[in-house]
Amino acid sequence: MKMLINSPGTVVEDALRGMAAAHPELAVDVVRRLVVRRDAPGAGRVGLVSGGGSGHEPLHAGFVGYGMLSAACPGEVFTSPVPDQMLGAAAAVDGGEGVLFVVKNYTGDVLNFEMAAELAEEDGIRVERVLVNDDVAVVDSLYTAGRRGTGATLFVEKIAGAAAEEGAPLEQVAAVARRVNEASRSFGVALSACTTPAKGSPTFDLPEGELELGVGIHGEPGRERRPMMTSREIAEVAVGAVLEELPGARPVLLLVNGTGATPLLELYGFNAEVQRVLAERGVPVARTLVGNYVTSLDMAGCSVTLCQADEELLRLWDAPVQTAALRWGR
Amino acid sequence: MKMLINSPGTVVEDALRGMAAAHPELAVDVVRRLVVRRDAPGAGRVGLVSGGGSGHEPLHAGFVGYGMLSAACPGEVFTSPVPDQMLGAAAAVDGGEGVLFVVKNYTGDVLNFEMAAELAEEDGIRVERVLVNDDVAVVDSLYTAGRRGTGATLFVEKIAGAAAEEGAPLEQVAAVARRVNEASRSFGVALSACTTPAKGSPTFDLPEGELELGVGIHGEPGRERRPMMTSREIAEVAVGAVLEELPGARPVLLLVNGTGATPLLELYGFNAEVQRVLAERGVPVARTLVGNYVTSLDMAGCSVTLCQADEELLRLWDAPVQTAALRWGR
Repeated sequence: MKMLINSPGTVVEDALRGMAAAHPELAVDVVRRLVVRRDAPGAGRVGLVSGGGSGHEPLHAGFVGYGMLSAACPGEVFTSPVPDQMLGAAAAVDGGEGVLFVVKNYTGDVLNFEMAAELAEEDGIRVERVLVNDDVAVVDSLYTAGRRGTGATLFVEKIAGAAAEEGAPLEQVAAVARRVNEASRSFGVALSACTTPAKGSPTFDLPEGELELGVGIHGEPGRERRPMMTSREIAEVAVGAVLEELPGARPVLLLVNGTGATPLLELYGFNAEVQRVLAERGVPVARTLVGNYVTSLDMAGCSVTLCQADEELLRLWDAPVQTAALRWGR
Repeated sequence: MKMLINSPGTVVEDALRGMAAAHPELAVDVVRRLVVRRDAPGAGRVGLVSGGGSGHEPLHAGFVGYGMLSAACPGEVFTSPVPDQMLGAAAAVDGGEGVLFVVKNYTGDVLNFEMAAELAEEDGIRVERVLVNDDVAVVDSLYTAGRRGTGATLFVEKIAGAAAEEGAPLEQVAAVARRVNEASRSFGVALSACTTPAKGSPTFDLPEGELELGVGIHGEPGRERRPMMTSREIAEVAVGAVLEELPGARPVLLLVNGTGATPLLELYGFNAEVQRVLAERGVPVARTLVGNYVTSLDMAGCSVTLCQADEELLRLWDAPVQTAALRWGR
């Protein structure tokens, strides 16, 4: 598999150099692998830190900025960052109001963020953690005990980031982040496998005429394989699976996410089908976001994330945000 | 090749339905295939219209909004829209100040926009046209007499859009658009071919160990095929080819563009190499944009566009923009 890289071992470092060059508004530490808001720490502002394996860009570094993350620590591709990175991020963004770690539910991330939280507390930094576990496809998985964390991470980071920007105290920012996670569920579908630079060949084998329903963002096995389906059929399965765990007809935030290699033309068409299914089920859509936000390298596919949003969550969603990958209202 | 679609014949219509659902701020006419700013026509504001074959999203419909395009008319995949669409767009956005057509240099687009301009003039709408022809790879190509129009389209639409938003008269908006095109050059590289829905298989054959230098945005042949190269080597070839036709060390706007299936992680790494080559050649980079903006469906690859920008072009580049795919400063 051909890649636009220098060598598998320098992919993350090269990307950070490129990010530094493109975004002077961010403080990028290539050696320590940290991407931090230039205006951090903010006086009277809770710090919001996330991170995880690389390969899901723009998640997380593309969400660092006004109204969203204070810092991101990228690990190697599909590999958790180390506690030192998380601790460095916490120290860089703590202005005395404490720090919230947003942690996707993968065993390595969970353990490393836990250790980093302990180290930070020893350094006198108050830390709360919120676990994102929105993927309804499977219980327990290749790298996860319990549900995996996927698309809801974007909702959690945006909405908790808005609360932090408004000056909400740590407990409140953590509470709203947990509320978003509880109100969110996702389901992903792969049309092709992804290829990590280290391996150089597809991480799993998906025959030409089949798709995988419920796939994870690292290509972890999903629920089942089926012969290729239409966009409408995929929307019915994905939305159906999500709504099974989010009953009721409350207005939702909708993320129609591409996993990397699916053209935007197809994603918008898929959004039309997702909206049709939601309308048929009587679920009002309050806001829609379509694009490649939580990706799996070059995987072709999509995921659907719904978040049942009350007035407060909607207000925080609409609040201004200014990051590399998500911007509005300012 | 698997696609997230209902059927090849409904791809554009489905995408427009999905765009309408996701972007209530746009007026999307699915039947006539028009995407128009809701506040068009603007009093005292020149209308800016572009369009072309679908499959290059977010170009052009993703660039409709405040400070950029007034309307876009998408054709079938890799096929020019028809004059009726362009005429409809012109009528929808003309508030008496006239309309500028931004036309990528492909024979079908050129002829159809020319016919639409004549029809619009008959209807009393003043029309100017600007041709975008920035691709240095080849002279004459599969669908083009002369240089192809590629990444510079984004620069032209953004900067002319800012001028229109400020209330500049038609001749002046057209002049600045032509100035941007003259100051811009591009070079593209394919690591894989793209697959159109109608064909269902790759549009050309690119062996596993090779890349194509100078490829067009529809997969048109480039300059040559070579054994796979590193990101740094590709940057040297691409930037070198562009600078040959843009001599001098004036500050540039830089677009590091993905053609669809190349992960953002790789694109940022490629940007690091592009910036390194530019620094070595003594070319200052004034602004950088990295992402999938002028795509070729699911093609893996990249392109580099440089625009030599004076103070006025930089100011218009920095001006607020609020579209589905490009937003800042407001």
